Amino acid sequence: MLNQNDLNLLQKGEPVNHFLLLKKCEIRNTKTNKQYLYLELGDKTASLNANLWDNFEEFYKQVNTGDVVKVAGSIDEFQGTPQIRINSIRKSNRKDDVLPQDFLPVSKRNPEIMKREILDRMEKISDPYLRTLMKQIFSGENLEKFLKAPAGKSWHHSYIHGLNEHTLEIIKICDLMCDIHPEINRDLLISGAMLHDLGKVEELSYETSFDYTDKGKLLGHIVISAMLINEEAKKISNFPEEIKNCLLHLILSHQGKLEYASPVVPKTLEAITLYQADELSAKVNAYKNALSSNSVSDSKWTKFISLASTDLYNHGIPQEDDEGINKTLFD
Amino acid sequence: MLNQNDLNLLQKGEPVNHFLLLKKCEIRNTKTNKQYLYLELGDKTASLNANLWDNFEEFYKQVNTGDVVKVAGSIDEFQGTPQIRINSIRKSNRKDDVLPQDFLPVSKRNPEIMKREILDRMEKISDPYLRTLMKQIFSGENLEKFLKAPAGKSWHHSYIHGLNEHTLEIIKICDLMCDIHPEINRDLLISGAMLHDLGKVEELSYETSFDYTDKGKLLGHIVISAMLINEEAKKISNFPEEIKNCLLHLILSHQGKLEYASPVVPKTLEAITLYQADELSAKVNAYKNALSSNSVSDSKWTKFISLASTDLYNHGIPQEDDEGINKTLFD
Amino acid sequence: MLNQNDLNLLQKGEPVNHFLLLKKCEIRNTKTNKQYLYLELGDKTASLNANLWDNFEEFYKQVNTGDVVKVAGSIDEFQGTPQIRINSIRKSNRKDDVLPQDFLPVSKRNPEIMKREILDRMEKISDPYLRTLMKQIFSGENLEKFLKAPAGKSWHHSYIHGLNEHTLEIIKICDLMCDIHPEINRDLLISGAMLHDLGKVEELSYETSFDYTDKGKLLGHIVISAMLINEEAKKISNFPEEIKNCLLHLILSHQGKLEYASPVVPKTLEAITLYQADELSAKVNAYKNALSSNSVSDSKWTKFISLASTDLYNHGIPQEDDEGINKTLFD
Amino acid sequence: MLNQNDLNLLQKGEPVNHFLLLKKCEIRNTKTNKQYLYLELGDKTASLNANLWDNFEEFYKQVNTGDVVKVAGSIDEFQGTPQIRINSIRKSNRKDDVLPQDFLPVSKRNPEIMKREILDRMEKISDPYLRTLMKQIFSGENLEKFLKAPAGKSWHHSYIHGLNEHTLEIIKICDLMCDIHPEINRDLLISGAMLHDLGKVEELSYETSFDYTDKGKLLGHIVISAMLINEEAKKISNFPEEIKNCLLHLILSHQGKLEYASPVVPKTLEAITLYQADELSAKVNAYKNALSSNSVSDSKWTKFISLASTDLYNHGIPQEDDEGINKTLFD
Amino acid sequence: MLNQNDLNLLQKGEPVNHFLLLKKCEIRNTKTNKQYLYLELGDKTASLNANLWDNFEEFYKQVNTGDVVKVAGSIDEFQGTPQIRINSIRKSNRKDDVLPQDFLPVSKRNPEIMKREILDRMEKISDPYLRTLMKQIFSGENLEKFLKAPAGKSWHHSYIHGLNEHTLEIIKICDLMCDIHPEINRDLLISGAMLHDLGKVEELSYETSFDYTDKGKLLGHIVISAMLINEEAKKISNFPEEIKNCLLHLILSHQGKLEYASPVVPKTLEAITLYQADELSAKVNAYKNALSSNSVSDSKWTKFISLASTDLYNHGIPQEDDEGINKTLFD
Amino acid sequence: MLNQNDLNLLQKGEPVNHFLLLKKCEIRNTKTNKQYLYLELGDKTASLNANLWDNFEEFYKQVNTGDVVKVAGSIDEFQGTPQIRINSIRKSNRKDDVLPQDFLPVSKRNPEIMKREILDRMEKISDPYLRTLMKQIFSGENLEKFLKAPAGKSWHHSYIHGLNEHTLEIIKICDLMCDIHPEINRDLLISGAMLHDLGKVEELSYETSFDYTDKGKLLGHIVISAMLINEEAKKISNFPEEIKNCLLHLILSHQGKLEYASPVVPKTLEAITLYQADELSAKVNAYKNALSSNSVSDSKWTKFISLASTDLYNHGIPQEDDEGINKTLFD
Repeated sequence: MLNQNDLNLLQKGEPVNHFLLLKKCEIRNTKTNKQYLYLELGDKTASLNANLWDNFEEFYKQVNTGDVVKVAGSIDEFQGTPQIRINSIRKSNRKDDVLPQDFLPVSKRNPEIMKREILDRMEKISDPYLRTLMKQIFSGENLEKFLKAPAGKSWHHSYIHGLNEHTLEIIKICDLMCDIHPEINRDLLISGAMLHDLGKVEELSYETSFDYTDKGKLLGHIVISAMLINEEAKKISNFPEEIKNCLLHLILSHQGKLEYASPVVPKTLEAITLYQADELSAKVNAYKNALSSNSVSDSKWTKFISLASTDLYNHGIPQEDDEGINKTLFD
Repeated sequence: MLNQNDLNLLQKGEPVNHFLLLKKCEIRNTKTNKQYLYLELGDKTASLNANLWDNFEEFYKQVNTGDVVKVAGSIDEFQGTPQIRINSIRKSNRKDDVLPQDFLPVSKRNPEIMKREILDRMEKISDPYLRTLMKQIFSGENLEKFLKAPAGKSWHHSYIHGLNEHTLEIIKICDLMCDIHPEINRDLLISGAMLHDLGKVEELSYETSFDYTDKGKLLGHIVISAMLINEEAKKISNFPEEIKNCLLHLILSHQGKLEYASPVVPKTLEAITLYQADELSAKVNAYKNALSSNSVSDSKWTKFISLASTDLYNHGIPQEDDEGINKTLFD
Repeated sequence: MLNQNDLNLLQKGEPVNHFLLLKKCEIRNTKTNKQYLYLELGDKTASLNANLWDNFEEFYKQVNTGDVVKVAGSIDEFQGTPQIRINSIRKSNRKDDVLPQDFLPVSKRNPEIMKREILDRMEKISDPYLRTLMKQIFSGENLEKFLKAPAGKSWHHSYIHGLNEHTLEIIKICDLMCDIHPEINRDLLISGAMLHDLGKVEELSYETSFDYTDKGKLLGHIVISAMLINEEAKKISNFPEEIKNCLLHLILSHQGKLEYASPVVPKTLEAITLYQADELSAKVNAYKNALSSNSVSDSKWTKFISLASTDLYNHGIPQEDDEGINKTLFD
Repeated sequence: MLNQNDLNLLQKGEPVNHFLLLKKCEIRNTKTNKQYLYLELGDKTASLNANLWDNFEEFYKQVNTGDVVKVAGSIDEFQGTPQIRINSIRKSNRKDDVLPQDFLPVSKRNPEIMKREILDRMEKISDPYLRTLMKQIFSGENLEKFLKAPAGKSWHHSYIHGLNEHTLEIIKICDLMCDIHPEINRDLLISGAMLHDLGKVEELSYETSFDYTDKGKLLGHIVISAMLINEEAKKISNFPEEIKNCLLHLILSHQGKLEYASPVVPKTLEAITLYQADELSAKVNAYKNALSSNSVSDSKWTKFISLASTDLYNHGIPQEDDEGINKTLFD
Repeated sequence: MLNQNDLNLLQKGEPVNHFLLLKKCEIRNTKTNKQYLYLELGDKTASLNANLWDNFEEFYKQVNTGDVVKVAGSIDEFQGTPQIRINSIRKSNRKDDVLPQDFLPVSKRNPEIMKREILDRMEKISDPYLRTLMKQIFSGENLEKFLKAPAGKSWHHSYIHGLNEHTLEIIKICDLMCDIHPEINRDLLISGAMLHDLGKVEELSYETSFDYTDKGKLLGHIVISAMLINEEAKKISNFPEEIKNCLLHLILSHQGKLEYASPVVPKTLEAITLYQADELSAKVNAYKNALSSNSVSDSKWTKFISLASTDLYNHGIPQEDDEGINKTLFD
Repeated sequence: MLNQNDLNLLQKGEPVNHFLLLKKCEIRNTKTNKQYLYLELGDKTASLNANLWDNFEEFYKQVNTGDVVKVAGSIDEFQGTPQIRINSIRKSNRKDDVLPQDFLPVSKRNPEIMKREILDRMEKISDPYLRTLMKQIFSGENLEKFLKAPAGKSWHHSYIHGLNEHTLEIIKICDLMCDIHPEINRDLLISGAMLHDLGKVEELSYETSFDYTDKGKLLGHIVISAMLINEEAKKISNFPEEIKNCLLHLILSHQGKLEYASPVVPKTLEAITLYQADELSAKVNAYKNALSSNSVSDSKWTKFISLASTDLYNHGIPQEDDEGINKTLFD
């Protein structure tokens, strides 16, 4: 466990004596042809720039982006944005006992609680075929990856454990919709909710930063999910064809529209519910993050957010206390 | 209270001795120039055609669409769809004690329970300005209309009490989202949810059938709502400008996109939540209704549903019992 | 083999003594409430209407759409379109030795030649993994279905053997593009061309008429193809991951745009080539068919073709002789 | 009244001894970490950059963007674009008798003449309800703001008095359309034209620069206008409901399409006329400005204009003399 | 000159003794297989249906659609719409002295006045090259066709002389815009306005009804106009290339957007003015016609107008007298 | 013929002693106000930057972009991209015997072979009118320009001789489609293919760089082609109107959709074939070039290609030898 102050809390002038993730490392030169080393360094709360003006060749040869480095220096400020003024820098070694993943953004919810929630909900699926399929898929390496992966590269739930956090939100919303509409097949819908973004564990890489894999860009998480479900269902004898097709349909249609990369549009009551529940969870999380990470000083308006096609407004209306954030959703 | 069997339960050959709503009444003629009277007659469960071949002139002069008539005859079937074979027909009179609204489709939920739910939730708004505004608006004639109106002409919650039923669903979804995201201002969001479709009480007429009013087509329910809120907030001294603008923004942006007739897109966390919660409630209700009212005999597929741009699939997978439909959502 | 004149060649007044496919069979009634039986009867060249005015109850109980019936009568004409005036009609029996598929539209090319072409081309794939995969997939039941299936319900190559005919055209175009551009990986492209629409054998039913299956509507042929390829490649030890992903990418992206139901857009040189070759083959075939089957008498213009968003023009400019239609494309 | 040469007329090397509006004022630093003060200074004709390299801290603390400053120096040129080389700079004080608004772009038409034109036209409205409503709205503070406001932030008529200038152009066009088409209700159309953009007086701020207000971004000028008209019409007893709804419809639909932020599309003859007249006035003004302010040296083509989705062409064809610009449109 | 009452003024029961244009003439048959002749007959004010039940074979052989026929009978009404009950009918002959064009809809403005207006305006073009080009084009057969042609098949100004009427409206609007904006090159703009739709004289046929020609559908009026101007300008020695290109650009871009079939978008100040002036003239005329010809009895709302994507509203607000309709626009 | 190594082959540190095309030449200045000369220098294989820090005034006055200059110096590298470090530079003179066009990108195919191919194919057109028209157009200056011009500014076949190379590819594809579909009129289609982009010889300038001409931007190559064909066909007596209209239709519709700037959509079998063949040739060439010229070091993925709306993937799968590139397509 890392014992150092979060980067986003340091003020101008305060000392830096931190392990940080090396996010960019490039030799640049000034207009007058002087070379220097341009760095981007971060922890899970922030990313800052820094320049090395001399004797950086040795360091430059030793490191790669994604490495953890030890930095000593102080917080400086240029043109209104904080930078790190570096006194010394070195690559971390085994004795330091630090890992790149300690520097990635992470869900604010407790991962152990979230793990228990998803496994508990799985047990409550009544249909034996679906419950068997779920337990077969959510086990071993698949389960581990699912519990750790982010739900996206940058837009919504884009932090470690984000995929499970997002999945749990959708399940909660879907269970509410089943309470309201008994016509919905609850087992089918909840199974679809659990599986809908599972392919993201192969679509995204998230060891030292969040990015798409080659497979992810060539196939997309929707089809990766579908192929996995198809394989696993084949292992269960007599798995009903109708259930399998309706479950696959849930996965394939959950982005709701062809232009959002779903190869089919929702055609069942469960499919329209899953699509809209996914939208609700994703959009609210994305706007919440965009509001906090794109703020402009002295303004209630954020920068223009291109995925929302607008800038967003942080109104100043006082609100209720934050008391619920780590409480279990399923009680 | 009307004491007769529902029209959709009558089988071919069974007698008809019913009060029914006159939905269409036109003189037509056959290819061979014989005139006859074409009628459309319905109760809240179904609409059937009927023809009068002789002596219909007197009856034709007495009635208008929207009247209740008394019909004696039997159920016939032509080309696979049931019709009414009429033996006698007359306009209803005062002694019959029947009203057109007894024949309109109506919510399956208990209106008294729903009324209590909406009023109870209103009382729980903590912000004094918002609570005062809500109580001022949801009273008298406005409240009465709100409790009775449908939420649409034909797509979702298009039945008597549908507006309140839809509003309660959204409130429930929004309260869940506030549980998950304490950053959302709960009072603001719930007030916006309660008011978002209020303008529909003037946009729609629903006395004898559901249709748009002239005002509704010229202004739209969004602007009608906004003008009403603006008027009512002016009556409350010192109503905070910031709250008023954010509340109006919720109403104006709740259809989410300009092309869906919202004059502004969602720019606050509450606004994106309300839009997505509205979508979830509306789409699930709409697809549920479309699945049941567009079925094709001997097929799991409905007719093509143009608002969904697809036909829909009634899978045969057994589901849980319907036990929750009349239980209060707020407990 | 059926020995009777094609329906589209019969003139008004000529006798009918034909086996025909029963495409529609409904009891209707006239304005004056007389019931009659409305029929649609066809062979592979045309479909005509017919009415039975009396004694049709027994016949109606015996038959289903998709059955072959024996009809005696003559060609009549009403309102400018030919009909069949029926003297007698009966359901076919085993001794008649006729099958529904004898009445479906069929490719004009020789199926045996086309079979040889596709199998020969498969043998020329140099990459051993891809050739093994192709031979594994194009065998047994899969091969049989592939050789028989149409390539669509109604727009292009919508006739028996149409899927293979369409596939062969694309292969020919793709081979030409490889001749022009040596940068294209020929084995990969040709394998993708062979497999791109294979899922249509499960997406479509084509025993007695052309329609979508439930699975086809819920999953779509693109994903059906991808799941099949994924399964089969798993059976080949050491099948290279890169080749598998690029092959799957070809299938997934071959409709070129998300809004055309491809879950990913073309991202490799082979993928853009396959998409454009598919478009070329499909559009030319579709327009050719639309021009001949939507003509309007006394006009060079067809009816409005909604898939082309225009009416089409049959200019009168004389053209070269038709000499190439049954010659093998691969020589 | 300011007595100094327009900034856009000064040549390289000429002295600067000007009051200018401070539009930007930021501390920046060079690659070699030297801090300097970056300024943007302008009058109503142009904006130029300037740098202060030393002793800027005191000045920096005294000023805010939007202040007027007194600058002495000369015109310099770097990389082909003129800059100001500053010898001395100070904040203006009361004795200088200069105001920020003296430095904003302003209509070329005489504001007094335009004021008379709009008030005269208002008097000619024959319908008593509409004339009363217009006189009630176009008075006091509303009138003052209307006469001064720009019609937009940057695209068309984006200068002081631009809102009235734009409104007068539309009125002239609408009166011509009424001459051609007597079916148009002239009073209704002209009233709608006068009011259509009135909400911009609250949507935009234009004291020291042109920008959107919070209210403007949350509600939009269309709804602000509608709420104002609704309030004012309520004060007139017996104001006819039909006229009010049609007038509100004009305002709501005047941007013509939902995707242009109108919550309803034009449904009356007056509404389609107003929309098209607005387009004509706005587009011609916008293109005229874009042609003159985006020119590229040594080219007849402007820079790419993103709102027009093209670059524009200044052809060299000689044209008639400019003689009409200040003559009254209404004579 | 035809001396008979307009068809749209005849009431049910009134006698018909009229020459009418034969717009449709088809043999149909009833459900019970009785053949009859279905006719559509019209003058320039209306079109009515009629049926001939007996002895129609001889008549059917003599006539073609587009012929004028003499009809005796009376006005009947079926299903709420008037029909003609025919007593006798015959084809017109030379002695009748009637022509098909007497039965086409025609502009309400005086064609001689409009001819004078367009020729007078042409003389006022100051640029000698443009004036010469205009006089060369607007002469002989071209001029005759231009003065007679409609401006469209059905949407706006779709009546005889409509092309000139529409062109004159645009000229009037453009002259107003030149008064407001002296930056516009008036000669260029007015020349473009005169020529912009000239190609419609070859795109449309309008002898016996309004329809597209083969050439019109294959090339479109925009390119037909451009080719004609190109040819005629080549005949004028030293015609300036810059003027020619800008004039062609006006014609090519006057539909404003690529998706409206303009091959280039407006890139000059004149081009944007012409596009918006065309839109204003076309839309107001189209909506005016749609309001009067799509009215629904007992409703202020028209039928749904697909080209406007809405139904339209005939408000009941009294308006000024129609006094200007035949007065010359240019005085 | 230029005797120097290609720029894209030079390594860091290697000497430069080259004639190069001057593509950009601007005086810039550093943050500290020092002026320098910024240059962009290239041959047909690459473009590199260079800076002159002193004594550049004389050189700057002598040259214009588009000139050839002689440069001595060496290859340097800053921030990972190569630059030229200049020791001396001078403008080329007549004795140097170098021309700007020697420095433009050029087709890899042999231009003499391509010239023979296009002329040979022209001779094989059987229809005498079309063959005469082709020979008339493809002669003299038109032919010369056609053989040299690129087919675009930057997207596909954007190199010298690219227009002919692209045209030949389309012809080959079209001939294949005629082999498959004898219903296509081969003469018409091939003539359309030859002419479809001919207008690009006037739309583009390609003497010293590739850019659009004024005429090209105002009219577009489609209409330029159409006007030329119209003129030339008028010179041939009795040129059949039907052939002329269908040929013009091919040119006008060959971009397939209105939004791609075709003023009409394809309405004949030849037109749909030409559009799809053009797409196939253009897209494959464009993606091939984009893959090679947008590569990112150490990545199989290119930069984001905005015209493809995606980044592209260079898979590592080995492919067949490049043996065919200079062989004649028509043998």
